[in-house]
Amino acid sequence: MGISIKGLAVLVILSNAIPTPVFSNDSDVRVNQDRLEYHILTLGEIGKDQTGATSRLAYSQFDLEGRAYAMRLMNDAGLKISIDAGGNVVGTRLGKDPSLKPIMTGSHIDTVPEGGNYDGVVGSLSAIEVAKTLNENNVILEHTLKVVIFTNEEGGHVGSRAISGRITEDMLNLKSQIGLTHREGIKKLGGKPGVLNKPLHEKGDLFAFIELHVEQGGVLDKEGINIGVVTGIVGIRRWLVDVIGEANHAGTTQMASRRDALVTAAMYVLAVNKVALGLEGNHVATVGRLAPEPDAINVVPGKVRTTLEIRDLSAEKIQKVFEVIEKASERIADRNGTKIIFNEIQQNAKPAPTNKAIQDEVKRAARELGLSFSYIPSGAGHDAQEFVPITPTSMIFVPSKGGVSHSGLEFTSANDIANGANVLLKTILAIDKFDQF
Amino acid sequence: MGISIKGLAVLVILSNAIPTPVFSNDSDVRVNQDRLEYHILTLGEIGKDQTGATSRLAYSQFDLEGRAYAMRLMNDAGLKISIDAGGNVVGTRLGKDPSLKPIMTGSHIDTVPEGGNYDGVVGSLSAIEVAKTLNENNVILEHTLKVVIFTNEEGGHVGSRAISGRITEDMLNLKSQIGLTHREGIKKLGGKPGVLNKPLHEKGDLFAFIELHVEQGGVLDKEGINIGVVTGIVGIRRWLVDVIGEANHAGTTQMASRRDALVTAAMYVLAVNKVALGLEGNHVATVGRLAPEPDAINVVPGKVRTTLEIRDLSAEKIQKVFEVIEKASERIADRNGTKIIFNEIQQNAKPAPTNKAIQDEVKRAARELGLSFSYIPSGAGHDAQEFVPITPTSMIFVPSKGGVSHSGLEFTSANDIANGANVLLKTILAIDKFDQF
Repeated sequence: MGISIKGLAVLVILSNAIPTPVFSNDSDVRVNQDRLEYHILTLGEIGKDQTGATSRLAYSQFDLEGRAYAMRLMNDAGLKISIDAGGNVVGTRLGKDPSLKPIMTGSHIDTVPEGGNYDGVVGSLSAIEVAKTLNENNVILEHTLKVVIFTNEEGGHVGSRAISGRITEDMLNLKSQIGLTHREGIKKLGGKPGVLNKPLHEKGDLFAFIELHVEQGGVLDKEGINIGVVTGIVGIRRWLVDVIGEANHAGTTQMASRRDALVTAAMYVLAVNKVALGLEGNHVATVGRLAPEPDAINVVPGKVRTTLEIRDLSAEKIQKVFEVIEKASERIADRNGTKIIFNEIQQNAKPAPTNKAIQDEVKRAARELGLSFSYIPSGAGHDAQEFVPITPTSMIFVPSKGGVSHSGLEFTSANDIANGANVLLKTILAIDKFDQF
Repeated sequence: MGISIKGLAVLVILSNAIPTPVFSNDSDVRVNQDRLEYHILTLGEIGKDQTGATSRLAYSQFDLEGRAYAMRLMNDAGLKISIDAGGNVVGTRLGKDPSLKPIMTGSHIDTVPEGGNYDGVVGSLSAIEVAKTLNENNVILEHTLKVVIFTNEEGGHVGSRAISGRITEDMLNLKSQIGLTHREGIKKLGGKPGVLNKPLHEKGDLFAFIELHVEQGGVLDKEGINIGVVTGIVGIRRWLVDVIGEANHAGTTQMASRRDALVTAAMYVLAVNKVALGLEGNHVATVGRLAPEPDAINVVPGKVRTTLEIRDLSAEKIQKVFEVIEKASERIADRNGTKIIFNEIQQNAKPAPTNKAIQDEVKRAARELGLSFSYIPSGAGHDAQEFVPITPTSMIFVPSKGGVSHSGLEFTSANDIANGANVLLKTILAIDKFDQF
């Protein structure tokens, strides 16, 4: 059995009595880059098609195979495996003090259709690699470490929501990408959807949560920075937007007599873009869908159904951007004798700021490892955001080539991944020594 | 049997020897407004739904019932009924001189889904009413009169194309709105699709073709004018337009880094509108369809498939409008680092100018009837345009309330219809006296 004394030199003796390396300090511990790369490439073969894209959709056979592979790695890393009620795979490594709350880390291995090999996988297999590394180096943490592979991140953070209690009956009854409801899918993974009306972890149950992930944006890659210290996960608000004009015969209705809903919708699209570009900050505003009615080549559109999505780290900023867009839209609609109606939809995510103290440890770890770093918000949603309401939470980003994500072309180098895994390892070692937050 | 002497007073005696009114001149002959209105309202009941809209789709049971009703009226008007190879119902009234080419008039009674009670019906039943009126007044024309109810106008002028030989094998194999191919549909109506590789009437076979129709635009109604002297049926060119940008994650791709295909498409829509409004003339340009890809609320669109349609009486003008739009689109695409690609589709109609001499007779008829009139192009396509290449052709428009068409709300008053039918009657009487065009 290994022995570890907080902040001091440690003599480690394996339980099978074979002599092992002696470290003067935890800070010399490093993950095995080649092994981690090999694991990532091996998992990437499960669900890969001829184009090199991976479709390991949640609840699918490939998802089950991927989870089985991750469980083999967990087992090999000395983690005690269980499936929680949300279908999450949980690998537990007991700490020295059973009275201390566990530190949790992990990510997901399900993909979008024709997705890549790094989104989620990097954080999942790095978390296992961290556990394996701790094991190999006979480092025993004060806190229990829980490594988690979350259920169906791509379908709406299903597993992480189950943990924090944000999964609803309605959501459980929704169909997932492969056609099973989340309820059926969770059951298929070995979970117990029937008990998910209560959180699996109440606020205060966990000591901290940390997730390593590829950036998905192109900022770190473009600027040549090794580590992103994630300041938070942006909030998201979404609207269905209806533009009402008047449908008319495209041959007999003179240009000046038209109340063309598509012309108004085009002005709306440009207004969204102009407002978002014009206001200072990192917010983004997107019109992703747009459908004219009746959608005929020879009919002046009478109605357009379109959308709006705004993201920012500040809820106030999102509101501000929306108000400016709404006002501009009103002017456009009036000018054209049309209407633009905004209906907010309940698919929103509140901004999820990460924990400052953990941010500091991520920064310190990067610095000690000789890595460059930058503060960066996450524009994408992540399992981590589900933990913000219940525990100190943080994220570590590594570069993703060209910012490409949800694509077979997604790429992060083995070295960048190992950097992130080492930062994760050092951050866990550091916060393990915290008495409290 | 009636006797009619060109341009002179006529003594008319019914074949059953009952004395009939004596006219000093053909110009006193008028249609029966109440009867015509009753026929139109009766036909309107066939295929009517609870909302008041009529769905008498070509080849449907309601279409067959409508045609049966029209054939009863034709029979009652003394017309000899046949079904031609295109499935058109042809009612023939022999003229005095069998060596003269026939005058043809007619329209269609099929409707769009949830269409109205006047589009096509007015011209069809007025043509029968004209024959009935000639009969009642024992007026026998020099030329044989052919009253036609055309097959499936709404599905692409199927019957009139069969007559002029513009129907192709490909078109016959296309599915119509109710799911039958045109080939199957024509067969169902009693036609012979197998022989449609040749025109039913060669160029020069007919003396003239005239079609009465509701305007479908709102010009006559707005300006309070009784009769539209149609100068021609506009030409139509259509393009599929692809806008190519780059799809990106809507959360992680900063506003300034986007190559949003929907933003470029919006600029394209506004450019089409601006160019069409800016150039002088009666042309119209319409973007009726637009679909972003991948069409997700949280993805910056990477591609947009949209359309362009331009109509005008002059082919050169259509080309000019297109070139200005194409040039503006190039500038927009370049500015945004995107592409806009135009692919013209083969659904085009050449401009179909109507015959000047018949226009003059329509004008004269209106004037003699004390009706106001105006020269007007047809922005909509009509069966008449299929006759322009093979015979002198003209159209008469009557007002349509608010320009509403292809809707249960379509309306033309009984008086306006009778005006049009009387103009049709007088125009036929007039050109019957032509020696040649």
